[in-house]
Amino acid sequence: MPRLADTLARLAPLDAAAVQAAREHSDRLTKPPGSLGALEDVAAHLAGLAGTAPPPLPEPAALVVFAADHGVHARGVTSWPQEVTAQMVTNMLTGGAVVNALARQCGVRVSVVDVGVATPYPEPGESPAAELLVRRVRPGTADLSRGPAMSRDEALAAVGVGIEVAEQLVSGGARCLLTGDMGIANTTASAALVAAMLGAEPAAVTGRGTGVDDAVLARKVAVVREALALHRPDPADPIGVLAAVGGLEHAALTGMVLAASALRVPVVLDGVIAGAAALVAAGLHPHALVGAVAGHRSAEPGHAAALAALGLRPLIDLDLRLGEGSGAVLALPLVQAAVRVLNETASFDSAGVSSKQ
Amino acid sequence: MPRLADTLARLAPLDAAAVQAAREHSDRLTKPPGSLGALEDVAAHLAGLAGTAPPPLPEPAALVVFAADHGVHARGVTSWPQEVTAQMVTNMLTGGAVVNALARQCGVRVSVVDVGVATPYPEPGESPAAELLVRRVRPGTADLSRGPAMSRDEALAAVGVGIEVAEQLVSGGARCLLTGDMGIANTTASAALVAAMLGAEPAAVTGRGTGVDDAVLARKVAVVREALALHRPDPADPIGVLAAVGGLEHAALTGMVLAASALRVPVVLDGVIAGAAALVAAGLHPHALVGAVAGHRSAEPGHAAALAALGLRPLIDLDLRLGEGSGAVLALPLVQAAVRVLNETASFDSAGVSSKQ
Repeated sequence: MPRLADTLARLAPLDAAAVQAAREHSDRLTKPPGSLGALEDVAAHLAGLAGTAPPPLPEPAALVVFAADHGVHARGVTSWPQEVTAQMVTNMLTGGAVVNALARQCGVRVSVVDVGVATPYPEPGESPAAELLVRRVRPGTADLSRGPAMSRDEALAAVGVGIEVAEQLVSGGARCLLTGDMGIANTTASAALVAAMLGAEPAAVTGRGTGVDDAVLARKVAVVREALALHRPDPADPIGVLAAVGGLEHAALTGMVLAASALRVPVVLDGVIAGAAALVAAGLHPHALVGAVAGHRSAEPGHAAALAALGLRPLIDLDLRLGEGSGAVLALPLVQAAVRVLNETASFDSAGVSSKQ
Repeated sequence: MPRLADTLARLAPLDAAAVQAAREHSDRLTKPPGSLGALEDVAAHLAGLAGTAPPPLPEPAALVVFAADHGVHARGVTSWPQEVTAQMVTNMLTGGAVVNALARQCGVRVSVVDVGVATPYPEPGESPAAELLVRRVRPGTADLSRGPAMSRDEALAAVGVGIEVAEQLVSGGARCLLTGDMGIANTTASAALVAAMLGAEPAAVTGRGTGVDDAVLARKVAVVREALALHRPDPADPIGVLAAVGGLEHAALTGMVLAASALRVPVVLDGVIAGAAALVAAGLHPHALVGAVAGHRSAEPGHAAALAALGLRPLIDLDLRLGEGSGAVLALPLVQAAVRVLNETASFDSAGVSSKQ
């Protein structure tokens, strides 16, 4: 697909000089050097991404919730009916979902992208709380434990949707992207992706998702194990892994992360769905994640494994397991704060404050 | 002191029925039960504080930076000159400190209370970035390693300042208070307070503060040990502990935390200085901390010890060690988000979303 190839061709490493300039600038500000801990790392990272220190404020920010269904739902891996995906799309469009409340607080624009919802939902009413983009590649994946979740072309098409949406939002003025997702059963596909990309034992990276009991958890692990045995996915072929065991929202998130990095716009990752997509992106290009900031670490074990493998430190670690982009939106003020401090704090010289002796 | 006695007399436990009502309300919302992790605990806590579920949004919020100096500075426990306390007061009044940048981002009002700054600073100019309240109990404490840091009456007077300021802010409309502090050498006094209140080994609760080297750290530990040997402070007499080894800002923060709890207004705690003050408050009354939310866990070992002893889970854990209230301001959006979700999210019934099967 030209869209993916073009995006990969534009990826480049962080600007090391800008990273260093941000560190030096930070150490001239009226605070003990290093005293903002991980936030100083975020600020330096974003300077390296922007190629300038201090970097621009990452605002306005735009959240994209990619919604899709999963054929593996048929295997009983969740206690929620499949139509909840479509119902939650409607809930987000009318502003009633958790992520709407969080987005209102932080002044974040919300787009819901139907990249593969399987059941119908009504047209949005007037003045919806979130924009709806219908880019349905197929009405949900096939059951990943019985065959490929989708074709390679479908996976590439969904990656392309993520790239397209990211490019549109940045063209429209967004200076920070946030990942979100909605898809009943998508923690099972996430676990399969993480296990495949990392070569991990399914039981070590499969979690309770929305809170399933021991019996369903055991079934999830068994389903992931079956899928890996069936497909023998090759992590050196990340698009093949996506097609075999991924979800349409994972594919779209892979595209969005790649596009953000290519456009040099920060992208705050939400939970395990984004973490799995980030692993796929990282498999496609060594600089795939230059734009990525880990918003939080969810309760899903596969998310912790993904973050560790990617070397990403999450900003929030509060046992969240909601999805929708909630962890990304909650982390946004921390990312903005990191950059704001670098832009607005007085230096020792300018403030007439004595330095350390 | 009548002010302290009156405040203690008004303390009461959380309203268990409101806590329970918040939990039940939360489980009716369109999200998996418990999926907001620690934020659901914060929301239920604040419902119990307010006595109503959902609780009111904790805004507007007001940060109070209590500034004071420390006689123990003479022992070489820090590499910063003492006059930096006064210089940073000026920096905060002119809007150049880190905490000003953070407060601007979150729409937080900043008050700087001089409860014991030892060196002069100029009068604030017109339209300062923060309000200045001069409530100087004494110009810095005495050296806690050679004698009492202050008299018992002075400690009580500083506690009274904290109560007074909290009451004024709440009367003025503040619905959330944030603790801040500025005082060169105050991590040494904090370590002494934590060691005294917890009966902890000084080396286990004394840290590098602004980033001192091994030699200065060893000196800090030795100074704390000397102070404990000299005063043999009794944790059953928290005001006595404050007077012996505390700081004027610690005393004021103790008062502010007590007043917030008495007024049933949440108070977000910053780092180790607030943590030490919270230990003193908890020693004064079993319901002293009903209003307290731990904003973050700093890099100071004494802070981790204080939070663990108090059973408080920090919302942010990013190796911050700045003080000024920075960790409290950074945590504020998380506290507000927790409450906002409870107030604004649709229920399964109202949104027409199917429940878990």
